[in-house]
Amino acid sequence: MSETPDNAVRTYIGTQRDAFLGDLAEWLRIPSVSAQPEHAADVRRSADWLATKLKETGFPTVEVWPTDGLPAVFAHWQCEDPEAPTVLVYGHHDVQPAALADGWHTEPFAPEIIDGKLYARGAADDKGQVFFHTLGVRAHLAATGRSTPAVHLKMLIEGEEESGSEHFRALVEEHAERLAADVVIVSDTGMWSAETPTVCTGMRGLAECEITLHGPDEDLHSGSFGGAVPNPATEVARLVAALHDEDGRVAVPGFYDGVRELTDRERELFAQLPFDETAWLRTAKSRALRGESGRTTLERLWARPTAEVNGIAGGYQGPGGKTIIPSSATVKLSFRLVDGQEPEHIARVVTDWVATRLPEGIRHRTTFHPGTRPCLAPLDHPALRSLARAMGRAFGKEILFTREGGSGPAADLQDVLGAPVLFLGISVPSDAWHAPNEKVELDLLFKGVEAGAHLWSDLAENWPRAH
Amino acid sequence: MSETPDNAVRTYIGTQRDAFLGDLAEWLRIPSVSAQPEHAADVRRSADWLATKLKETGFPTVEVWPTDGLPAVFAHWQCEDPEAPTVLVYGHHDVQPAALADGWHTEPFAPEIIDGKLYARGAADDKGQVFFHTLGVRAHLAATGRSTPAVHLKMLIEGEEESGSEHFRALVEEHAERLAADVVIVSDTGMWSAETPTVCTGMRGLAECEITLHGPDEDLHSGSFGGAVPNPATEVARLVAALHDEDGRVAVPGFYDGVRELTDRERELFAQLPFDETAWLRTAKSRALRGESGRTTLERLWARPTAEVNGIAGGYQGPGGKTIIPSSATVKLSFRLVDGQEPEHIARVVTDWVATRLPEGIRHRTTFHPGTRPCLAPLDHPALRSLARAMGRAFGKEILFTREGGSGPAADLQDVLGAPVLFLGISVPSDAWHAPNEKVELDLLFKGVEAGAHLWSDLAENWPRAH
Repeated sequence: MSETPDNAVRTYIGTQRDAFLGDLAEWLRIPSVSAQPEHAADVRRSADWLATKLKETGFPTVEVWPTDGLPAVFAHWQCEDPEAPTVLVYGHHDVQPAALADGWHTEPFAPEIIDGKLYARGAADDKGQVFFHTLGVRAHLAATGRSTPAVHLKMLIEGEEESGSEHFRALVEEHAERLAADVVIVSDTGMWSAETPTVCTGMRGLAECEITLHGPDEDLHSGSFGGAVPNPATEVARLVAALHDEDGRVAVPGFYDGVRELTDRERELFAQLPFDETAWLRTAKSRALRGESGRTTLERLWARPTAEVNGIAGGYQGPGGKTIIPSSATVKLSFRLVDGQEPEHIARVVTDWVATRLPEGIRHRTTFHPGTRPCLAPLDHPALRSLARAMGRAFGKEILFTREGGSGPAADLQDVLGAPVLFLGISVPSDAWHAPNEKVELDLLFKGVEAGAHLWSDLAENWPRAH
Repeated sequence: MSETPDNAVRTYIGTQRDAFLGDLAEWLRIPSVSAQPEHAADVRRSADWLATKLKETGFPTVEVWPTDGLPAVFAHWQCEDPEAPTVLVYGHHDVQPAALADGWHTEPFAPEIIDGKLYARGAADDKGQVFFHTLGVRAHLAATGRSTPAVHLKMLIEGEEESGSEHFRALVEEHAERLAADVVIVSDTGMWSAETPTVCTGMRGLAECEITLHGPDEDLHSGSFGGAVPNPATEVARLVAALHDEDGRVAVPGFYDGVRELTDRERELFAQLPFDETAWLRTAKSRALRGESGRTTLERLWARPTAEVNGIAGGYQGPGGKTIIPSSATVKLSFRLVDGQEPEHIARVVTDWVATRLPEGIRHRTTFHPGTRPCLAPLDHPALRSLARAMGRAFGKEILFTREGGSGPAADLQDVLGAPVLFLGISVPSDAWHAPNEKVELDLLFKGVEAGAHLWSDLAENWPRAH
């Protein structure tokens, strides 16, 4: 009785399990915190460590790519079939800061397995989800008897994701030719839950700005001048209040230009997810839902653009009171963008809108940071079908489809390389990204290995060929 | 040819001028900065110095009154006529902080006379304006040949005005019987200008609060949660935006309860003042007027209540952006109140209003600090007529009437003693209160001495007697 491919993959993984976890633990011990300059050497060490492991995995080409900041790792493994699709896997090897004092029950950089969960900073975000690809591709080779993957496989693992990916776009532009791919697989997201495995199909884009209003040249006495001159703190509040209409829609003219409504098929996919309002509010540490009228929570989070205040400041902030009219006030806004929106257009319409809304006597400056485009994989893309099948084989369940409300450097890959971006992640909401006691569930981690192993075969088989 | 009373006052002042300025300079050398604990001993020294000078002036009763903070000085000089009115002069002997490095051209605590102006911290606010009363009462005695003033004269000179008068109300309540007066004369304000001498007839009241809104239990990722939960920074901005209606009126129901419209006579007095919009805007370091529709700037400043944002804060305030939904946001508001308004009522209506305006999922706390009542002297009060005549004799000009937009501890005297409060001040807007290079114009300072000298005679002559 010959083994099924799925069993072959599982059998191979079983033989490698302990060694794989030992290697991952070694990587997790490197505190590659990109936001903290004192850990720059650790981030470099992490890149070198990963490069060595990718060589051991079998990638013939492995390079550490310097940036003006911290290094990324690139690997390339060509297959013998020139018509096979080229796949670029994206992830990151840097991590968020972490300290025992923040409330960790274990040392964040001393990985420990407790009840089938591996606790460490980076366990899920993102070392665990990068590393499962190393065992995934080896399982793929072992189960298929191949000496090279069934696709042209590239990996790009950056080192500055947790500190804003400042040099990422330049890196991708510099190496655009070597990074060229038919599809990008991002392994830096999660699933709906362990019980409801899902594939993410897109992320929102992002436009961020700071608006500063200037009134009097210096703070004024609110008794001597109150009631007779414009107050920039009042005006900044009026601006924020005018950002949304009564239906919770963004009231900036032109903001919704190009926004595509969900198709019936997309609505149906959202509706298949077991959304539980009470559980979601618990995750959101909030007491009520609120947003654009006539939209479900998932639509608000994944398929509708937003305007949120990230920070507002003006005047006296200390204890007690101080009777002044502040000289200036500032608001930091972020706009999440969906399919059809461009951050440059949003910057233009918001800047224009601000200029029209301010009264005489208030000077203003609106500054937009570089934006991020939304990315959305077409539901009928063959690579998305392959990904869903590969996940389905790993989990033995139907795979549902989600999106991400956040934004990421994946959009730079989509933009520069012109390739669709898909998301293969096995993390779950309880994995505590950016928080104390980050973990990855070992069961899910190895499902990720399996999904990776199946994906390369499925893509090669089902990729549309010229002949 | 017998000397006129006005000449007699002037002649006497002429003989005392140098000694008076020498004494004042000595007082100004004491850095009685009440807001800085390291100067507490200087404030005490200042009180003792003043007590000694008031004794030398002739006050039979002079006491330094301790408080839970810094001391006040009380003086009492009874006259032989039991039916004469009792007048309480209020001022303060503490000063604002000052340092050469702030932009002073002279050492702030080393008084210098340059071009007829005496430069020093406290020269106008308030030592100069307190001290002119010492020479004023002596000139009054010299010119009238009296051995006691024509009124029962009391002085209360506090030591914490520049740091919030924290213990002042308790002090006044404790000594209410000894402070009892028919009229209070506050010498801690200014005039319209040197060319347009004026008497101030009232100050606005004050209610101050802090409103804190709580949304999610901690800051949320604006990508993962943005668009679907209430944002407290947005809600605090909506609250502020809703504070005023389109006519610039405060939109809180009940806010205008009891507010009295100006009488024709009051409007006429405001209109007599040579208000110059351009010059005023320069003083306000602002580029445009703004306020309640249909009201002149002076009415907005003196006779209409206001709501001003003193500070607003929520979420990320550092450089660059941070894509969060903040957990909380705060606004500090101050309301200036006019005749007919009570701070307690304002606290009630604002607190109620806030509670009705917030969406589900936003918790809130509104905290009001103790308020200050407005005070306004009746235009037909005999003491106000006396004061205007005394100023008129000093300046040789018709005296116009102003008000103050600010609020002060004078209201406590009005409340506790039940006496009308009038304002005798000779400072001008260029005197730079609370700023570098504070000064008093010597010409005006001696007009203050004259006005004080005349006031006691005029009050005694024109006070309504029982018989």
